[in-house]
Amino acid sequence: MKNDRFLRACRQEKTDTVPVWYMRQAGRYQPEYREIRKKYSLIEITTIPDVCAEVTMLPVQQLGVDAAILFSDIMVPVGAIGLPFEIKSGVGPVIETPIRTLDDVNRLHDFDMEQDLGYVVETIQILNRELDVPLIGFSGAPFTLASYMVEGGPSRNHLKTKAMMYRAPEVWEALMARLEKTIVHYLEGQVKAGAQALQIFDSWVGTLSPLDYKRYVLPAVKRIFAGIQHLDVPKIYFGVGTGELLTQFPETGADVIGIDWRVPLSEAGKRVGDNVAIQGNLDPAVLLAPWPEIEQRAKTIIDQGKQHPGHIFNLGHGVFPDVEVDTLRRLTEFIHEYGRTSL
Amino acid sequence: MKNDRFLRACRQEKTDTVPVWYMRQAGRYQPEYREIRKKYSLIEITTIPDVCAEVTMLPVQQLGVDAAILFSDIMVPVGAIGLPFEIKSGVGPVIETPIRTLDDVNRLHDFDMEQDLGYVVETIQILNRELDVPLIGFSGAPFTLASYMVEGGPSRNHLKTKAMMYRAPEVWEALMARLEKTIVHYLEGQVKAGAQALQIFDSWVGTLSPLDYKRYVLPAVKRIFAGIQHLDVPKIYFGVGTGELLTQFPETGADVIGIDWRVPLSEAGKRVGDNVAIQGNLDPAVLLAPWPEIEQRAKTIIDQGKQHPGHIFNLGHGVFPDVEVDTLRRLTEFIHEYGRTSL
Repeated sequence: MKNDRFLRACRQEKTDTVPVWYMRQAGRYQPEYREIRKKYSLIEITTIPDVCAEVTMLPVQQLGVDAAILFSDIMVPVGAIGLPFEIKSGVGPVIETPIRTLDDVNRLHDFDMEQDLGYVVETIQILNRELDVPLIGFSGAPFTLASYMVEGGPSRNHLKTKAMMYRAPEVWEALMARLEKTIVHYLEGQVKAGAQALQIFDSWVGTLSPLDYKRYVLPAVKRIFAGIQHLDVPKIYFGVGTGELLTQFPETGADVIGIDWRVPLSEAGKRVGDNVAIQGNLDPAVLLAPWPEIEQRAKTIIDQGKQHPGHIFNLGHGVFPDVEVDTLRRLTEFIHEYGRTSL
Repeated sequence: MKNDRFLRACRQEKTDTVPVWYMRQAGRYQPEYREIRKKYSLIEITTIPDVCAEVTMLPVQQLGVDAAILFSDIMVPVGAIGLPFEIKSGVGPVIETPIRTLDDVNRLHDFDMEQDLGYVVETIQILNRELDVPLIGFSGAPFTLASYMVEGGPSRNHLKTKAMMYRAPEVWEALMARLEKTIVHYLEGQVKAGAQALQIFDSWVGTLSPLDYKRYVLPAVKRIFAGIQHLDVPKIYFGVGTGELLTQFPETGADVIGIDWRVPLSEAGKRVGDNVAIQGNLDPAVLLAPWPEIEQRAKTIIDQGKQHPGHIFNLGHGVFPDVEVDTLRRLTEFIHEYGRTSL
């Protein structure tokens, strides 16, 4: 591989400059992606290996980022274990028959990568041949996947999910156990196919109090990281609004903790400690600001990041469709340039 | 007034037990409220003084809480300055013609309490005669109101609002200035009519990084608290997901800081310091848990709250419709009882 600075930073090793990639770096902000979406739905793209590989590689070619992330949706393995979903435009994943009872959980199947998601294996094999940067495989984390499965779609308050935790802990634990097995096999399958790093998205876990996280979620996340420990790739754990949970995150077993924009990176670094690398954390909304403002904020993040052993530049959440491709290209160049002088 | 323990706690004075009220304590979880809503819309209720007073008093009678909060919607003053809105069931406030330009801001009127919201004055006068606990008047804060006005409704990412801050600071500042004047007059009008405390809801401000809060929002909030400083009533400032902003909140001039459930109360107390009282912070979702769990968590909050000079028990956000009236009644009793022994 030509460019391994992302992997080196994940491993807290010295790099020539600050590595960078962007969550949702393949997406609607790209005219080429919008063209492809005229022909295929998001989920269709994930099932056609050469199109999926093309979409995954586009931001690497266009922006010069230091890692690719498999183009997919966090709901893909949920569909594979027998819970059908639909991605509704402007809404997100919607599930007609949400999980409410132990019977609902027991009806979910076992997961088999080759059989259920052979096309993902094929996509990763293409990417492995074509990419000169590492490929990040990924999965949703159990709480975040469960929240869609229980609520039936995106939710502001995650009330049904929390109610299940509190009132039906046996259903909750069964659902966590089922998701743990699925996620471990799914991540394992991606690494076997050629993924060189993994990110676990616990996007909505920031809705939980530290006590609820510790009691109802952390054990499942720990078991997942334990289950993939034998895979010799860096493992990233990320969620939004997780400021008060950061001190617990190193216990998960992750090598890298993703930080959202609400916590200054210097403070986040203190909370997670020096034994894990950090990734983040520009507010994706700032990409709509005039360039000097973006540059100033990127500088601050790089300056704070270099105080920590291992920093990968990223956004605090995914790229929005309103962002200009040129802005992200310029930002990538700036990070590489300023990152070089600042190290 | 028979019961002033809420006001005493706001002023960091000694109380006989821990005072308690609940955000959205008048609402759909109450069968009586649901009956009234069959006849009137939410906004209609706010315009009919005797019905509005009845709805405001109901939770005081039913739960035994130590304060009433004027039944209203944060959008009421926004409608009064000339931006029509509609409360859509299951969505929230929706605005057909959102604010995007300086012309849009300049088209908003001046606010006149007596002329625009005479019925609110009348409602407060009724409540003043009937209540034996303090009445809290309230307003939305400028960021939170602006977010609805700019987005056109509730929003997950507040992208248009942030884009206005970054790209059109002159429009943003004009909007803040207009809202400041409106909010100050609105709060003043409520106190003149008889409100004995004020709460400013900056519900969505937690979407901002500490830098953005400091630069684009804190100055406006400070000017509002300065504008109502002459009113001799306790002033509360509250938002959700504000863990990283808490250290800035005492600068606003508020007497009490509302805390959401994500930050343990002991930690929140350290961040805001001893010169302000604190209010909170049970996760409203916990009200769906079995009673022993609710009791245990309420205990922890009271135990942590008593370490701080001035604590008012509340939820970390509003009551959900799925909660049982009996649960809140039992919780109120428990807080008064356990709060007495623990002080």
